[in-house]
Parts: sequence; C-alpha cells; structure tokens
Amino acid sequence: MEDRKRDHIDLAFSSRLEAKHADNRFDYEPLFGTHHKTEQEFHFAGKKMRLPLWVSSMTGGTKRAGTINKNLAQACAEFGLGMGLGSCRILLDSPEHFEDFNVRPIMGNEAPLFANIGICQLENMLQDGSSDKLAELVDKLDADGLIIHINPLQEAFQPEGDQLKRPALELLQEYLENTTMKIIVKEVGQGFGYASLKQLLQLPIEAIEFAAMGGTNFSLVELNRSDAVAAEVFNPFIHVGHTAEEMTHMVNKLVDELPLEAIQAKQLIISGGISSVLDGYYLTSISKLPAFYGMGSAFLRHAMGDYSKLRAFVEKIDQSWSLATNFLKVKQA
Amino acid sequence: MEDRKRDHIDLAFSSRLEAKHADNRFDYEPLFGTHHKTEQEFHFAGKKMRLPLWVSSMTGGTKRAGTINKNLAQACAEFGLGMGLGSCRILLDSPEHFEDFNVRPIMGNEAPLFANIGICQLENMLQDGSSDKLAELVDKLDADGLIIHINPLQEAFQPEGDQLKRPALELLQEYLENTTMKIIVKEVGQGFGYASLKQLLQLPIEAIEFAAMGGTNFSLVELNRSDAVAAEVFNPFIHVGHTAEEMTHMVNKLVDELPLEAIQAKQLIISGGISSVLDGYYLTSISKLPAFYGMGSAFLRHAMGDYSKLRAFVEKIDQSWSLATNFLKVKQA
Amino acid sequence: MEDRKRDHIDLAFSSRLEAKHADNRFDYEPLFGTHHKTEQEFHFAGKKMRLPLWVSSMTGGTKRAGTINKNLAQACAEFGLGMGLGSCRILLDSPEHFEDFNVRPIMGNEAPLFANIGICQLENMLQDGSSDKLAELVDKLDADGLIIHINPLQEAFQPEGDQLKRPALELLQEYLENTTMKIIVKEVGQGFGYASLKQLLQLPIEAIEFAAMGGTNFSLVELNRSDAVAAEVFNPFIHVGHTAEEMTHMVNKLVDELPLEAIQAKQLIISGGISSVLDGYYLTSISKLPAFYGMGSAFLRHAMGDYSKLRAFVEKIDQSWSLATNFLKVKQA
Amino acid sequence: MEDRKRDHIDLAFSSRLEAKHADNRFDYEPLFGTHHKTEQEFHFAGKKMRLPLWVSSMTGGTKRAGTINKNLAQACAEFGLGMGLGSCRILLDSPEHFEDFNVRPIMGNEAPLFANIGICQLENMLQDGSSDKLAELVDKLDADGLIIHINPLQEAFQPEGDQLKRPALELLQEYLENTTMKIIVKEVGQGFGYASLKQLLQLPIEAIEFAAMGGTNFSLVELNRSDAVAAEVFNPFIHVGHTAEEMTHMVNKLVDELPLEAIQAKQLIISGGISSVLDGYYLTSISKLPAFYGMGSAFLRHAMGDYSKLRAFVEKIDQSWSLATNFLKVKQA
Repeated sequence: MEDRKRDHIDLAFSSRLEAKHADNRFDYEPLFGTHHKTEQEFHFAGKKMRLPLWVSSMTGGTKRAGTINKNLAQACAEFGLGMGLGSCRILLDSPEHFEDFNVRPIMGNEAPLFANIGICQLENMLQDGSSDKLAELVDKLDADGLIIHINPLQEAFQPEGDQLKRPALELLQEYLENTTMKIIVKEVGQGFGYASLKQLLQLPIEAIEFAAMGGTNFSLVELNRSDAVAAEVFNPFIHVGHTAEEMTHMVNKLVDELPLEAIQAKQLIISGGISSVLDGYYLTSISKLPAFYGMGSAFLRHAMGDYSKLRAFVEKIDQSWSLATNFLKVKQA
Repeated sequence: MEDRKRDHIDLAFSSRLEAKHADNRFDYEPLFGTHHKTEQEFHFAGKKMRLPLWVSSMTGGTKRAGTINKNLAQACAEFGLGMGLGSCRILLDSPEHFEDFNVRPIMGNEAPLFANIGICQLENMLQDGSSDKLAELVDKLDADGLIIHINPLQEAFQPEGDQLKRPALELLQEYLENTTMKIIVKEVGQGFGYASLKQLLQLPIEAIEFAAMGGTNFSLVELNRSDAVAAEVFNPFIHVGHTAEEMTHMVNKLVDELPLEAIQAKQLIISGGISSVLDGYYLTSISKLPAFYGMGSAFLRHAMGDYSKLRAFVEKIDQSWSLATNFLKVKQA
Repeated sequence: MEDRKRDHIDLAFSSRLEAKHADNRFDYEPLFGTHHKTEQEFHFAGKKMRLPLWVSSMTGGTKRAGTINKNLAQACAEFGLGMGLGSCRILLDSPEHFEDFNVRPIMGNEAPLFANIGICQLENMLQDGSSDKLAELVDKLDADGLIIHINPLQEAFQPEGDQLKRPALELLQEYLENTTMKIIVKEVGQGFGYASLKQLLQLPIEAIEFAAMGGTNFSLVELNRSDAVAAEVFNPFIHVGHTAEEMTHMVNKLVDELPLEAIQAKQLIISGGISSVLDGYYLTSISKLPAFYGMGSAFLRHAMGDYSKLRAFVEKIDQSWSLATNFLKVKQA
Repeated sequence: MEDRKRDHIDLAFSSRLEAKHADNRFDYEPLFGTHHKTEQEFHFAGKKMRLPLWVSSMTGGTKRAGTINKNLAQACAEFGLGMGLGSCRILLDSPEHFEDFNVRPIMGNEAPLFANIGICQLENMLQDGSSDKLAELVDKLDADGLIIHINPLQEAFQPEGDQLKRPALELLQEYLENTTMKIIVKEVGQGFGYASLKQLLQLPIEAIEFAAMGGTNFSLVELNRSDAVAAEVFNPFIHVGHTAEEMTHMVNKLVDELPLEAIQAKQLIISGGISSVLDGYYLTSISKLPAFYGMGSAFLRHAMGDYSKLRAFVEKIDQSWSLATNFLKVKQA
C-alpha cells in the first residue's frame, strides 16, 4: 500500500489532461450509473449479435490472412459480433485459398457473416452472365449475404486496374433485381457523398457500410505502391471524401427529407476511422437509422498473433461499452 | 545601476509577448488601484479564511505524505486557507497511519479542515451498517466535515477496483438523511456533467468541489499504471469530462433555472486545472454561487521539502490576489 | 498475388488519412461515373485547347530556359494546352536569345501562344513612341497575342528596378486604344485586389491572368536576392495579396454587380498556387466567367529534363481531369 | 543577365507564400499608384515631422545608451521623426548621466522630443512638493514636454520596487492642474484597458502612447530578473493586457460614445508590437483620432552600432511608407 501511495504522488504530476484535448461529445455523469454489465441483443440478417459491433476484415489469400480471419471469427463467436470478410475475388479464380476465408465453422451459426466482392467483378459477371457464381460463393462460405464494395479510384490508380464501363448504381440495381441474397454496399475508405447516400438508402439492401474517410483508404494503399509521378498527381483525390460523422449527419438529413416508404436500406454499419468504443457509442447514438459501428484495422492490429491477445482486447471493448452506457450521456447537438 | 540598465537593453529583446498568448479574460486597468494589500474574510463550515483558496491535498499513508500534509497545514494557519485531506480510506483499516493525516494541531482551529472518503467505501459501510465509523474518523481528526469523492471510472480501471452496486446519487441521499456532518462532494479529475450538477445543487451539502478536467485525473493515474491494452482501450474515457470554467457556467445556468429554494448546496470549491491565482480570480468572480478556488498539485510541488519553500510560494499567491483585485477587471461576457 | 496481399496488410496501417486533412470542396460520388475518358474542346484567342489548362512559363534567356520552353511546347501540342511565355524583355535588346522563345514550330498551330512584357517596358516604349516593337515581337514569335505583367513591388525591391511614372491602368488604356493585338493582363505572384479587378474586367482584353498569391512570387524572388535590411523591412509587403480562390469570388461578385455590357474581358486564367488538377477543377467550376486554370512551377519542375518525364506528368493530369469530372461533385457554397 | 535568369529559375521554387500567411488587412491594388515618393507633413507639440513615426527610446544611463540615443536623434533629424526618451529618473539623482540623454543638439529643433518619468516618481515628488524638478529636467533637456509612464506591475515585481499609495489617475489629474507642460501618458508593455482609456481621453494631454502588449514588456523584464517562485506565480499577469489593434478599436469606440467636447487628449501614439511599417500604416489609417505609430526595439536593434546602419534601416522604412500609400488599400471592416 505504501508503494502504491508513493506512486500516486509521482503519477499525479503526469496525469493531467489539457482541456483542449477534451472530448466534447459527451457529458460525464458519474452519479447515475453502476458497474453492472449491460446485456443487450441486436438482430441483423436473421442472425443475432450481443454488441452493436461489426468486424470489417480486410484480408484473405495469404497464410497470415488465414490466421487473422480465424482469430476474428473466434472473437465474433465469444463476444457476439458480426463479421464481413475482405475481398473474396481471389476465390473465384483460385479456390485453393478457400480455407483462409472459411470461418463459419469457427464462428458458429449465431452471428452474421458476409462475403465480399468488388463492383468491377460484378460488372464483369453481369456482362458475361456468370453472376450466379456469387451466390455459389456465399453458399460455399455458409455466409448470410454479400458485401459489394465500390472502388473506382482504387481501380484507376492501379496500373492493371479494372475499368468501370457502366455506373455502379446501374449495376447494383440490375443485380438486386436478379438476386435474393442479402446485400451490403460499402466504400473502401473515402465514404459516400450525399447524392450517393440518397440512392443507396432507396435500394433494398441489408445495410450501407460507410468505410468512411479516416480509416484504411484503399485508394491510398494503391498510391503508396505507385510511381512518384502518379503518387504526386493523384494524391489530392485521396483527400476528398466523407468522415463517418459527416455521413451519419447526411443520412439523418436524408431520413428527414425522404418519404418514409422510400427508405429500403435497413440499417447502417458506421465504419472508417472509428478508433474507439466512444466513437461507436456516439455515432450509433445519434443515428436516426438503426446502426452498428464497425472497425477494421483496430481489430487487425490485435489479431495477427495468438487469440489470447485479441481476446484481451475485445474484453476491454465489451467492458467499455458498459461503462459508456452507464456513465456517459451523448450531448444534444 | 549601470549594470541594471545594461540588463534592461539585453532583456528588452527577450521580454516580448505575442498577442496570441494573451489572456483575454481581463481588462488591465492600471489607473485605478494602489499597492495596498487587500484584507478580506471568508466564512465556511463555521470557520474563517483570509483568502478564498482551498488546499486540495491528494495524499496520505506514506512518510512523504506526512511531511506534505504538515507543510500544507502550516501554510493554512499562516495565510488563512481551508484544507481537504486526501483519501482517508487507509485509516479505516490501518490506524497506524493516523499521524500522516493529523494536521489540526499544526493548522490551529481558525480555518476549516475536511476528511475524505470514496463513494464505494461509503456504499460498503452503508451496506454493512458501519457508516458510523465515518463520524468517528472525522471526530478523531478534529475535522469540520467529510469530503465524499465520486470515482466510478477510477475504480473500473483498477484491476482490484471496487464495484458500485447502486448509483452514487442514491448512496449520497441515503447518507445525508442519516448524518449531521457537513459534507463536500467532489469528483476526481473529470468533473461533473450538467445532470449531475443539477442533482448535487439540490443536496443539503456544504460545497460541491469540482475536481474538474485539467487537474490531476485519478482515472488517468490508474491507466498510467495499467497494461497496454487497458491503457489503449480505456484511454478515450479520460478525455471525457468538464473543465472548471465549463462547470462554472453550467452552475450559473442552473442557478438561473432552478427555483431559489431548491438550491441547498451552499457553495462551490472550483478546482481542477486551476494553475494560477488569475484562474481562481476569474472563476470565483463570474460564479453566481459563493465560491473558493482550489489547487492541488500546485501546492504539492512546493510542499515536498522545507516549509520555507512553500511559504515563499504562498506569499506570492497572497500578493497576487491583491494585485489582481487592484489592477485587473473581469471582462463582461 | 500472395505478395500483393501481404503488402495490403502492411500498407493498411499507413494508408489512413486524418479527417482534418480532408478536402471539403467536393462530394465524392462513386455511384454515377465511369472510367471513360472525357473529351472536351475549349476556344481561346481564335485557337483550340483540349484541356482547360494554361502553361505559365516563367523563363527565357538561358540555355536551360530553351530546353524548358521546348518541352512545354511539345506537351501543349500533344495534350492541347495553351501557353504564355516568360518575360520577353531580353529579346528587345538581345535578339540572339530568340531561339529560347521560338516554340511555335514545336507547338504547332492549333493551340494558343502568348508573348509577355512588363508594364514598365510598356511605359518606356509609350514614352519614346517605340511600342510598335511589341507587335513586331509578337509577329516574329508567331504568337497569338501579348501578356502584360504588372509588377510595381518587384521593380521597387530591385536596386536597379524601373520606376513607374504613370499608373499602370492609364498605360494599359492608352495602349489598348492603339493596338489590335489580343492582350492578357497578369500580376506576378500577389494577385489583384477588388478595385483593380473591377477595372480590368472593363478593359477589352482576351483574359485576366491571376498569378495570385500562393504561387511563385516575383517580389519575393527579388527580396531573396536583397541585402538583409531590405529583406527585413520590405518582407511584410510580400504577405499582402490575394489568393486564386479569393480572386475568383471577387470576380464572381463583380460579375453580379457590373452591368453585363460593361464586362469586356473575355475570360480568366486562374493561376497562382494552383497545385493540383482538383484546385483547377474547383475554381473553374465555380467561376461565373469562362475560365482556364494555369500552372507554372508545377510544369517547371517536370520540364527541366527529358520530354518523357514531362509527358508522364501531363498524362496523369489528363487522366485526373477525367476522374474529377466523373466522380467529384463541387459542393454548393 | 544570364546569371540573373538562372537565379530566377532556382529562386522560383523557394519564393512561394502559403495563403495561410496572408496579411488580410489590405487589398493589393497595383493599377493605380506610381513610384513617386509621397511627401507629407505632421504637426505635434508645436513641432513638425515628415513621417507619422515616433521613436520610443527605452534606455539611458549607460555608455551604450548614449550611443543609441545619439544615433536615434540623428535619424529623427534626417527623416523627420519624433522621439521620446527612456526613463530619465536617473538624472534626478545622478546628473553626471546628462550627456546620455542630451540629444537636442544632434536632433535639431524641428522635430518633437519628450523626456520621460515614472508615475511613482511623480507621486513621491507630489508628496514632498518637489515636482518643479520635472519642469527643470524638461527645460535642461530642451524637450517639448514630458512622458509619464504607468507601471504598477513592474514596480510590484521588483523586490525594491516603489509602492503606489494613490491611484495613478488621481496623481495625473493633480499634476495636470499644476503644470503647463505638454504631457504624454504611456504604459510599459501591457497597454490600457477600456476604463483607463476612457479616463485618459478626457485628460488635457498631448498624446496617449499605447506601449501595448506585443512589444517590450517591462513587467516581464522584471520577472526575467526574478527568482523562480516569483517568476512562476506572477507570470500569468504578464499575459493580461491589450494589443495595439485592440486598443485602437477601443479608442474608436470611445470616440463614438463620448461627447465630442469631452475628448481632450489630442492624439495617439500607437506603439507596442508594431513590427513593420504595414502595422503602422494599418493602425494609423483605421484610427479615428489623429495618430502616429511608434516603435522601440525595432529601432534599438539597428541603433547599437554605427549610424550608417540605422540610416539604411530608416531609409527603407521611408520608402515603405511611400509604397504602402501608393499600392495598398486598407480593407473596410
């Protein structure tokens, strides 16, 4: 006890926080809550989650990716999280990578799992009439549906990138008329602007995933692999985009403006630059549509080694959600 | 004289202050005041102070803490300051530490002195019916009352932390109905939000001490002793809170909104990030409730050695208060 | 493929963009465009351009300058850009430098080319009745007209600088009454204020080129060659000026305020600190007058070596314009 | 010429100014002015100046100070500037320092010169009936009047500092009723607040000199000579004060609010943090009272060596004033 007290004196001087670093989104209200764990249940795509938290995986097709996906799936099983796989394009050509993506046996059947494919692959399949392969893929993975990611800048910045010949919106509309699968539409790191969100909200989809600016930006990933001239000239495009908070406000505005019956998208997955439980707590609280929050690289950083490391991380996440709901109150705008 | 003048030329170049560092809370009015010392008297908890300044001690239970508390008590006696002890929990279990906290003989009987205990200890005592021990503690220390500190995040971030089973507000209400002691309620470094302040103002207590964000933050003290994963995941909570200035404005708003007879808390002790006399002069000037200002680590830094060092510090503080009242005028909002 | 995927994991952590660096001038709308190249045509001074992009050359009179000008001219030919030469004053005295400026044979006859002279040279020629030499110069260069640059601060900061004896506006008016040449008026790095723009818009000129603050500032070029006292005392003047965006808004305001028939200037060349295609896309989009965007040092940096380097740069510029028009929507103010 | 052109290419890349460093107080209007020198004449205290520029000397009583004062006086003679001496207190006790302050023979009789004394010295003299010595001092220096500086914080921060027993305003009023000398009242680096300015404007004085925050701060000079505890506790006072721009706006407001006949102060000397001719051009332009601008340390830095150095500096200042009046237009608020 003597030692802990001495620590307190020394730590006191270094344990101050300048007001300019304050998080003004919340009131801190320590008088009304307790330390009891909050028990909640969330429903999505016919499945069930225990935290409103979505794991956005970003990888597949390598041995390291296999380990990562298995760790993430185990955390989903233990803590009741939903999960979206990284791009499964490789499986269409190289089925030998199947095991890297085959997480349903680990994850169990309670929580939702989605496969993932790019808009250019969809265009190619629609063009040559092979889009049934997507349903087969989802079936083989025992997934609950398919994420379609929209990435025209990423493709443009790749020397070998695919070319969109028709607008993404047309392709989505055509595909949705011809499939019964549950679909999530997401961006790849720069989010969607107002006009795009307005259209997406009116599509019969399971969710819009933001993949907003602030998180991993796959157009920037490509530029970081490019030659110097491409990196210089294209770089300004990377700075265009929409943050998760901005997008949440845009969707709220659209919810107010659109006729109720026009909104067919069921919910949001607010991802892209969500760096803490508090970001997720804030944005899901202010959203007028039902919403989960999603994290990608935060999970990835803890998922590359032994499962016990990831487990310790998600356990604190779980506890943080309880503390937030007990002691923090979202400020009215 | 020749040397001093040469100094002036050299110092002139380094004695400039950029406008962006200006303190815009005050008008500087050098035409109206004099250098006469301001003599004032303040009353609190049946005792008397000569400066509106409260010493928030933070320690106890070590030899070093004993020296610190004695120095602080001597300054309270000489300059007429009030004092709150650090957490006295250790005394409930280990009475051999009594002398570290036994400052009344040094402090004399003129100025107010308060003991201090955490909300979780209060809950435990209420639960097992032993809360009389608190009155005994206060009596043994010859204190004028008891500070109860509210620290649910600090407890949550401690691996061995206590668990609040009932909301702090309920515990305070129950205890206040069953004691005649003078009570101060304080936070531990993040302050209270609007809803909490609204309730506290309506409790029959001697004072609300802010312990606002900006000063020593005991939740952060715990995180600085934690493992890396806890430090990472819980860190965002540390950034939630309320500064002393924000809280003063919130209390002013509540004073305007609440019926006059509803306000039972007698006054404020504005502490937490008060780094100078001018902070205290400003906030006590704009407060609509009677208010002292309180400092913790500012005193602590000067109290760890010989009393003469602390004395030199408090003497300048005393002179600063006179200069502020003579030459600085608080700007109207 | 395995390697590329591993790259993706590693790059993911370094490919994030903080929201504070976001470019808020655009909405990113990936649902509506395609990767087809945009084909456009622009007319200026009786000639034709394929991108709304003006090359502001800044040099002449050295061997290095000759190479630079030839590279730039070749890019103008290949990609359909217009070009303004750097100051041609040297040719009036030293015709042996002619070949450094003689780019029409390389550029071909499709795209516009302008010669360039300073206001003080014009004043001297008007004074001694030799201004016909300017038409001869333009003729010899097979240029489509003449740029007159306005640079009183640059002249003042040069120890050997020329002295303006009459206001620049008077000189321009007198010359325009006595010539049939197509004239562009430009600044040299600090732009024009509101009153100057108001007058320029009412002159019968082909274009106003901004040469705004943010790009190469020729007054600062002079100060960087000056003695320490001049650099210190004159430096604050360098900070006065108008950015390309500010000037675009000022012109828009004037377009609204002036009677339609009063505006005789045909269009804008928005230059000065335009560091990317997106700057140009934004400013030409919001301009109420027809507008190109112009870049100087961005071209200069790539034009000092082999043409293939410049070509690779302009090719990405060309592709960027297509991407911008397909996927970025300028936000309404 | 070849070399100069090569220079231009290399310098072009380093001669850019980011828009965020722009000076937004002016429009740059290069179309309307010329390079002719502006000739103006200003009257003050019965004397004449050729620039609206006041030299605020800060020193005296050392050999170095003597050189400085003589250089400054010579510049005043050559360029038509007014001058205020540093504190002449030392001359009251030690007349052997007279030659350090005896600048009238160098300055000539055309331009105004003022002696300088502190408010506490004035109080002492008023108290012991010796204030006639001030008129004798001014007479001996052949000065046109007396500056009284107000410095209660500076005195308080000096261990041996004088104590103001009566408010400065009372002392000024009493002295003004009993003297016919022309008086300037100035601060010493923190300026005056609104209430002080309101009183000063109603005193029959020749000028108010701001000595605002941003220039040499004599309270800070004292703190920089103090022990660590004084420096720490008193430091926040240094941050209180008013910039020259803020004070100009306050005086403008008072000019609008006070009855015209109540304003007896004839003009302003806007000093304190004026670091360039443009600061002076701006503030004297927006001032509703007649105003000069004053600089202290800017002169001091160039006045410590040979006169030729100071001369080169003031010559550029003179030229800058012409350029500003020809090409810069103060923006309307």
